[in-house]
Order: sequence, then structure tokens, then C-alpha cells
Amino acid sequence: MESEMENPQRLHVQPQSERLEAQWVVGFVDGEGCFFVGINPHPEMTSGFQVLPEFTVVQHQRDIQLLHALKQFFGCGVVRRNHGERMAYRVRSLEHLNQKIVPFFEQHPLRSKKKIDFLKFRRILLMMQDRKHLELDGIEAIRDIAAKMNTGCER
Amino acid sequence: MESEMENPQRLHVQPQSERLEAQWVVGFVDGEGCFFVGINPHPEMTSGFQVLPEFTVVQHQRDIQLLHALKQFFGCGVVRRNHGERMAYRVRSLEHLNQKIVPFFEQHPLRSKKKIDFLKFRRILLMMQDRKHLELDGIEAIRDIAAKMNTGCER
Repeated sequence: MESEMENPQRLHVQPQSERLEAQWVVGFVDGEGCFFVGINPHPEMTSGFQVLPEFTVVQHQRDIQLLHALKQFFGCGVVRRNHGERMAYRVRSLEHLNQKIVPFFEQHPLRSKKKIDFLKFRRILLMMQDRKHLELDGIEAIRDIAAKMNTGCER
Repeated sequence: MESEMENPQRLHVQPQSERLEAQWVVGFVDGEGCFFVGINPHPEMTSGFQVLPEFTVVQHQRDIQLLHALKQFFGCGVVRRNHGERMAYRVRSLEHLNQKIVPFFEQHPLRSKKKIDFLKFRRILLMMQDRKHLELDGIEAIRDIAAKMNTGCER
């Protein structure tokens, strides 16, 4: 490790085969993750609104390799610039959220209060599977849940 | 899990026996931890300065139970209010830093660029073991290392 100290640049090149451990992912997401549900006006939808759940982890670009490692770990999502020097790992596909992200955090529970956001996020995804978001009643119920999420996470 | 969704207050009471896993701690510290070395004027020291290394994890008070879990995990440190609604887990004892914090992160390496801060932190602790911080030359060398640490962490 001392040689890394002397030459920090070496740390910038992480081996491609670096694999994350599940509990590391849980700890990192407890710190840096965000479960968000956007609700945007959308005239072409019957309900008049589009519901857009997303799972996001934002980092300074110096740690972009961690975002790529998360993408590899979950086997879905994209790494894009968020704004300025901030990069984001983002999963928006309903299929990937339902089949990869949600099952992972069911099997490996978060330890911070983000767990409450996750449970609300999962509840909204289940409502969408029941097509509730296509009716105005459902939109209002989803909006009520989403309004109580994400106290202080970056996305 | 659905019952926690219905009654989020239940999550506020975590069982006392909750134990963290090492990789969760690494992931959480990659996101939220800080290795900091303060250098303050101190007329009573031969060198004129006091060197104060500290390991800190800051969280909103809603997640104070995680800070207590970290204290239990490392078997050292204190949990105190940082400012406003922010709480901090903090280890300042040189003995605890040298015997508990540093060996843990040697055995369980960080994955983010905070690893570079950790290596500088460890180097300064080693210099202090060699009593370098008691001479002005040593203070200047420590100051040079410390000045390049902690790009964007909260303490």
C-alpha cells in the first residue's frame, strides 16, 4: 500500500475485474444512493401524468470507476454526467428496477433511513405493475407517497 | 417489510444487537467517512503546533443509530452533535486510531479515492509515532501531506 501512497495515480487505474461485495454496495448506497420517483405532466398519458421511478448514485468524477463497478454489479443502468464534476449511475428501466434493484435490496436490507424511501419506492413500483399510474386516483396516491421520500439525497 | 412501510417509526428502534458487517462499514465510509489531520498553533508544544488526526463519519440525526453501531463496531470513539441536525462519530485517540481504525482499513481497503486520504492519514500517524511532529521540520512535512487531503468530505 505504501507504493500507492507514493504514487496516487496508480489508484486511478482499477482492474476491470474488480467486483463489489453485496454488503459494500449496501453500505455505499446507505451513504450515497437515492430512490426517487418523478411525476411529470404528460398530455399523451390517460392520467395526464408520467411516473418515472429511478435509482441513482451520484459521485464526484474522481470516483467514476465506482459507478461503473455498480453498473457491472447490478448488470443494468447507465453512467452519465450529472452536472459539473458530478457523475451519476442511474437505473430507470422498470424491468431492471423490478427484476434487479428491488430484489437486491430486499435480500440485502439498507441500514439507514433510506430503507424507508426504498420501501415507498417498491410500493410505487408495485402500484405501477397494477397499472394504478394510468388512472388519476392512482397518480394522486403515488404523488402522496413520493412527496414523503428523499429527504436530503443527491440525484 | 411492508409493515415497516406502513409504520416507519418502527425503523427508528433498531435492535441493540445489530452488528455491522465489515464490507458494509467500508462501503459506508467510502461514501460518508473522513480522514482529517488538523494542525493548530499550540505555544506549549516544542514545535509550536499540535497535530490532531481524526476519523469522522457525519450523518443527519435521523441515522444516529448507525453512528452508535459504528462506535460499537470499532470499539472506540464518541458520537456527538456536529452542528444543527448533523451528528458525528469521531475517533481522535492516537491509540485507537493506530490500533483499531488503521488496521481495519488496512485489512479492508477502501474502494473510493478516500483510500488515498487514508494512506496519507496513516503516513502522518506513523510520523507521529516517530515523534516527527515534535520538531518544526516534521510539522512542515506533515502540513504538506495534510494540505492534499480531504477533497470534499464532511467533518
